[in-house]
Amino acid sequence: MSGHATGTTVLKLGGSVVTEKRTRETVDEASLTAAVGAIAAATVAAAGTDTSAAATDGIDDDPERLVLVHGGGSFGHPAASEHGISSEAGSRDAGAARAVHGAMGRLNGRVVDALADRGVPAFPVHPLSLAHRDREGDLALPAAQVATMLDEGFVPVLHGDVLAHAGRGVTVMSGDTLAVALAERLDAGRVGLCTGVSGVLDADGRVVERIDSFERVADSLSGSDATDVTGGMAGKVRALLALDAPASVFGLDDLEDFLAGGSPGTRIG
Amino acid sequence: MSGHATGTTVLKLGGSVVTEKRTRETVDEASLTAAVGAIAAATVAAAGTDTSAAATDGIDDDPERLVLVHGGGSFGHPAASEHGISSEAGSRDAGAARAVHGAMGRLNGRVVDALADRGVPAFPVHPLSLAHRDREGDLALPAAQVATMLDEGFVPVLHGDVLAHAGRGVTVMSGDTLAVALAERLDAGRVGLCTGVSGVLDADGRVVERIDSFERVADSLSGSDATDVTGGMAGKVRALLALDAPASVFGLDDLEDFLAGGSPGTRIG
Repeated sequence: MSGHATGTTVLKLGGSVVTEKRTRETVDEASLTAAVGAIAAATVAAAGTDTSAAATDGIDDDPERLVLVHGGGSFGHPAASEHGISSEAGSRDAGAARAVHGAMGRLNGRVVDALADRGVPAFPVHPLSLAHRDREGDLALPAAQVATMLDEGFVPVLHGDVLAHAGRGVTVMSGDTLAVALAERLDAGRVGLCTGVSGVLDADGRVVERIDSFERVADSLSGSDATDVTGGMAGKVRALLALDAPASVFGLDDLEDFLAGGSPGTRIG
Repeated sequence: MSGHATGTTVLKLGGSVVTEKRTRETVDEASLTAAVGAIAAATVAAAGTDTSAAATDGIDDDPERLVLVHGGGSFGHPAASEHGISSEAGSRDAGAARAVHGAMGRLNGRVVDALADRGVPAFPVHPLSLAHRDREGDLALPAAQVATMLDEGFVPVLHGDVLAHAGRGVTVMSGDTLAVALAERLDAGRVGLCTGVSGVLDADGRVVERIDSFERVADSLSGSDATDVTGGMAGKVRALLALDAPASVFGLDDLEDFLAGGSPGTRIG
């Protein structure tokens, strides 16, 4: 593990990992259990080591600082598209906004409960409560409260959500956008996107090992992942390349490897 | 109604107004219905007027900008005292923190649902997601997202909650503390505390009409309201006196009067 200043990891669990995308508001129990197991193994073990170290010699052995973000999958996306709300198209219909926010809150509750059952000190953090967009569409996302949770040993669990947007009512902030914005504000050392595929795939369906320039992969990415209304793989890659921190895009089977410090799947940046 | 800059009203509904304090996690349905009715009459009517005005002549007739806060009552207080969490005593037990936060979230859901059923464009806003305390105990409470909700015509509904507190895990922020802090940050024109009594009572049980100095009322207030672990009336008065905005402490019967611009009960400051 790296030092304290770069010791924060932002991990996004894709909506296609934690939900069954084809059945409305349905958690993919097997995948969620597997993801939570990997997270518990990394964080609960680290906290246990830290406690005993502190009890015996007072040395801070740098426990894992982990921020989780999850996508919307079959919870957020159907509600958002029914009401015509996207990252661009706003709504002043409070009921529509609550429908999207409520669906995401229910998924967040399931994820937090699953983590809590495995002993992960998870806290729900709802973006509608904390963030907004201004008239230029710039995202204001205060993160000092999230940093304080991390300092105190908790694991904040955020999610894609609707946000108040000056002049537009509410618009959607995707889990991908949130993960990147959090990584910037928390000066994260590593970012991981755990997705429904094993990494960024080239035109032949093979995992690209490393991407350090968007232009070199743009052609093979365009049009992929067309069912994801909040961006698709091309958008993820572009946003991750803009980060200072290295990022990895990988599948659920590689989550344990990522949390142990590895760079499975596609390394970006 | 006053002009735009001072047009924001912060209204706190006491835990003893919206819940049955003696029965755990029980809403006082009659009181909540009455409170929501008064709020709906003030905000939905104002929004309706605004819409038609905008449709006909484009003039902004300054609709009510209302921020709601509610206390914990029989939801938050029992959970907090069971786990020994207060505004001073912290906890690093994530399960205990989630128990308090979850109880408050359930009450918030009931309040938001009741408002939504009456057409109020209410949004749940959870303080754990947005605020924290630093090592000196100072409260960091970003409010630009709440201001954007108001600008867009929504009614944010916040609540007493646990917050991450540097060096102490989590501590409690009461609804009273939150209402005062929001009023400061939003430059509110008026603050109202709707409580289980008709105002601040003197030693003989009569409502004090006006308080502009703590010293003059301190003696008769001390010891009152001892069952309220998050401050009691003396603490409320002291905090409200420190505000620039005038505040009123009143009972549920006077909520409609307050929302119509009146100063029922006890006027403070």
